Amino acid sequence: MTPKTSPLLMSRLLDRGAHVAPKEEIVSLTATGRHVQTYEQTRSRAHQLAHALENAGIQQGDRVATFMWNHASHLEAYHAISCMGAVLHTLNIRLSPSDLEYIINHAEVRIIIADPDLLPLLAPLVGRIPSVRKVVVTSLEDVDWTTDLPDPVAYDDFIGGFPEHYDWPQLDENSPLGLCYTSGTTGQPKGVQYTHRSTYLHTLTIMMTDSMNLSALDVNCGIVPMFHAMGWGVPWALLTVGAKQVLPNRFMSPDKLLQALASEKVTVSQGVPTIWQGVKAILEAHPGDFDLSTLQRLTCGGSAPPESLIRWYWETLGVEMIQGWGMTETSPLGTISRRLMQRSDLDLSEGERIANVSKAGRLLPGLEMDIFDEEFNRLPHDGESIGELLIRGPWVCEEYYKDSQPSKFHAGWLVTGDVAKIDPNNYLIISDRSKDLVKSGGEWISSVDLENHIVALPDVNQACVVAQPHPRWDERPVALVILKKGSNLTAGGIIEHCSKKFAKWQLPDEVLFVDEIPLTSTGKMDKKVVRAHLQEQSYVLPSLRETG
Amino acid sequence: MTPKTSPLLMSRLLDRGAHVAPKEEIVSLTATGRHVQTYEQTRSRAHQLAHALENAGIQQGDRVATFMWNHASHLEAYHAISCMGAVLHTLNIRLSPSDLEYIINHAEVRIIIADPDLLPLLAPLVGRIPSVRKVVVTSLEDVDWTTDLPDPVAYDDFIGGFPEHYDWPQLDENSPLGLCYTSGTTGQPKGVQYTHRSTYLHTLTIMMTDSMNLSALDVNCGIVPMFHAMGWGVPWALLTVGAKQVLPNRFMSPDKLLQALASEKVTVSQGVPTIWQGVKAILEAHPGDFDLSTLQRLTCGGSAPPESLIRWYWETLGVEMIQGWGMTETSPLGTISRRLMQRSDLDLSEGERIANVSKAGRLLPGLEMDIFDEEFNRLPHDGESIGELLIRGPWVCEEYYKDSQPSKFHAGWLVTGDVAKIDPNNYLIISDRSKDLVKSGGEWISSVDLENHIVALPDVNQACVVAQPHPRWDERPVALVILKKGSNLTAGGIIEHCSKKFAKWQLPDEVLFVDEIPLTSTGKMDKKVVRAHLQEQSYVLPSLRETG
Repeated sequence: MTPKTSPLLMSRLLDRGAHVAPKEEIVSLTATGRHVQTYEQTRSRAHQLAHALENAGIQQGDRVATFMWNHASHLEAYHAISCMGAVLHTLNIRLSPSDLEYIINHAEVRIIIADPDLLPLLAPLVGRIPSVRKVVVTSLEDVDWTTDLPDPVAYDDFIGGFPEHYDWPQLDENSPLGLCYTSGTTGQPKGVQYTHRSTYLHTLTIMMTDSMNLSALDVNCGIVPMFHAMGWGVPWALLTVGAKQVLPNRFMSPDKLLQALASEKVTVSQGVPTIWQGVKAILEAHPGDFDLSTLQRLTCGGSAPPESLIRWYWETLGVEMIQGWGMTETSPLGTISRRLMQRSDLDLSEGERIANVSKAGRLLPGLEMDIFDEEFNRLPHDGESIGELLIRGPWVCEEYYKDSQPSKFHAGWLVTGDVAKIDPNNYLIISDRSKDLVKSGGEWISSVDLENHIVALPDVNQACVVAQPHPRWDERPVALVILKKGSNLTAGGIIEHCSKKFAKWQLPDEVLFVDEIPLTSTGKMDKKVVRAHLQEQSYVLPSLRETG
Repeated sequence: MTPKTSPLLMSRLLDRGAHVAPKEEIVSLTATGRHVQTYEQTRSRAHQLAHALENAGIQQGDRVATFMWNHASHLEAYHAISCMGAVLHTLNIRLSPSDLEYIINHAEVRIIIADPDLLPLLAPLVGRIPSVRKVVVTSLEDVDWTTDLPDPVAYDDFIGGFPEHYDWPQLDENSPLGLCYTSGTTGQPKGVQYTHRSTYLHTLTIMMTDSMNLSALDVNCGIVPMFHAMGWGVPWALLTVGAKQVLPNRFMSPDKLLQALASEKVTVSQGVPTIWQGVKAILEAHPGDFDLSTLQRLTCGGSAPPESLIRWYWETLGVEMIQGWGMTETSPLGTISRRLMQRSDLDLSEGERIANVSKAGRLLPGLEMDIFDEEFNRLPHDGESIGELLIRGPWVCEEYYKDSQPSKFHAGWLVTGDVAKIDPNNYLIISDRSKDLVKSGGEWISSVDLENHIVALPDVNQACVVAQPHPRWDERPVALVILKKGSNLTAGGIIEHCSKKFAKWQLPDEVLFVDEIPLTSTGKMDKKVVRAHLQEQSYVLPSLRETG
């Protein structure tokens, strides 16, 4: 049974939603309400877009970039660009102009499809991105726009008049399908190129009952941006199963999201923990205002949700928070954690179930992972040993795009840059990003563990722990904390709280109350910037001040 | 992202059950009760079996046959033989000695693993299967056995003492993994060889929520024999997810199955319609005797379940009957039909939902199918046009094993031998096996449609419609019917019932009441034998008797 005629191409999957659920809705939020199109219409428009791109000179392997919020046109771009054999390059709209310039030139992008409200962010690049021949500006809403980027055209004019059927080509399954740059914390952004095969296998796996169990019966609200690791792969899966989709477009404030979750009868959604923190704050401030009775599960990734958040959603709303761990380099899903992962979990207490969900989870079928010491010896899965996390498998990156970076790979494994434990039940527990660990007196202190413990205090909105240099101990931890309005919590109270769980040498040397913690373009706390700010302010640890 | 180091091998999946649910149980029924071993133990024993087979001379690509009921040792054989790179050849224990001899010699089987109670069925082959070097006899139960087959050894002695870890080899993903012969209705049995890749993709797909949604939280009772199209692929999926398994071994009577479904708290099971007819008969005779409150869904395949049966299970037990269509050549799942396949099905009446489940279903993601006329032109999906069903995709056979059979394939498509309709909702509706269609006056009459209509009569246990030769009309239908005990139903009553749905020219020319209808080795009605019996009895259609 050699599959001579059956390569793993996304064209095999993406037309299926319209096949099984032609009249199902894809809803995009707009300034005036909601824009609705069916799966059937979306498929037709995607096929038209492929014709239009071909007509504009796009050939197999050419990079077509998107610079968009999550909405129906972005979905059409996913569908058309990949199936026609071009490369879908999702640009992160939150990057700096210099990063965007680097990425667009490094990828040699031919065409950019952009939202009209985002054009000002591209204005600084005029004249600096010579490979770009054309800009297509989406027309989901009737908005005036102007741009000095080359050869601009409105999306509907661009695709209008082309046939609603495109014969998807038979490609090699290892052909490139997508390109996503990681927001590098050091050096230039690095490109991760997905293939049809890698995305096909990732898509099948996230549709499994025991992973994200996405179904045609779901109403999915995709909050994670489609420019973050391909929206965690969810858009591919939804186009395959034919679920109703709700796409927030640029209306990303917690109250707008909550209105959509309630009015569209959403069953499942994906977002980073800060989103769910924001939604929770509104729900607490306005109890009973939103009917979330259809909501079943929230997939949470990007960084670990605090246990208190997982508990709140379960106890208050009966909503299962699912934790996933992964990276742009892993397509992205690597592990997943759910309330019930095996039958014996039925015997666990609610507290034990929540403790399991607060771990990064268990490996998806088909992948391999392990923790290693500095000589690449495997460490025991005892929940104690901490080592560098390595992962490999059919949808894990083995090299960066036109940028070899050999230190990021080891004998076919991806060196994740995370340090982690694996417990006897084979749950992965991320200790920290290796660069964010605090190295004190030859021992490691996990900044993530301290943050999660501090944020469990009801008065704390956010906490960020970073290392500061110390001549004797090498590094010592300092905590930056955002308190809720009106709170009287003191630094001493926070240290007192930490001392219930952590050894004395692991406690922060100081707690600094702040109004804001800088975030990266993917919504994570930007510790590189936090450390830079402290350095600019000539921050010195209290013990050094006293003795200094 | 070229997966240089990550071929799609079953060794990537099959050790996973023991990884996620090491203490979960695999229960095999025995003469004295139940044999239990954990996933952890099963994995260790599978690794030992691989060592033992290697030690007995088995090399990559060698065929190792099983001649067994469904039980833990059969599962170990699935696991070990495939992962070590040998070929799992599941022999159908219900075949005739001459078919077994042909198949074993055609496949050049090296070793047979057999159950002790089945050895007498192999006795006629002694001296006739020269490639077989050794017979391993399972020891799940303490049974005396003897055989003249070469070099016999007890299974536990065979694997005993070998290490509990085997380093699975890195193979080409297109390497053969399994071999299954179809019970040919004409000519010799034909071999279907699965590869690691084809089985890997089939396994991922049946774990999807929108197909069979198998989960670690399930308790699965695998009734469909593991020698029928690899147990419909379910053993591979269960070893991957780590669900509790209940395996009936040779205790296949409806009352034994019912006891197991109740006492083991089974949630999902797979079997042919005759199994579920038998279970229903016991439940009706002994209402309240069996607690089936955990049972959620029954997957039904092999032949189409009557609508009345689907309705009975839903209305009486709240159990969803899932219909799947497929063939040994399609790994086997091709289409699936469930009560709710898309959100708009929520608006359907119960009758409409049941009508949908009584269709063969909708195509699984990744496959392509269509209906064609005799010149291979595609026919419309109008629910009316009937044509030859063709299918292709990553787990669909493109040639038989050492037996080209070009008429069974067309330009990469498998010619299924089924004639079918496709309705406007893209549901497949099988009209008949092409060889069982009744061709009358240039029109086709579906024997399956007539049978399903007749069997809906409460007094009818089974119905079989076959064509008989007619000089003017070419063929005319005749119905063989098994009535329930004590029924007074007449032939005229059955024809009267049929005339409510079928046109006059489609009605059977005669109804013959019989005590038994012969079955094939896979439990389907054997119409070839029915037709042969009628010919032996010099059967003549009534109209020809009258005019003759």
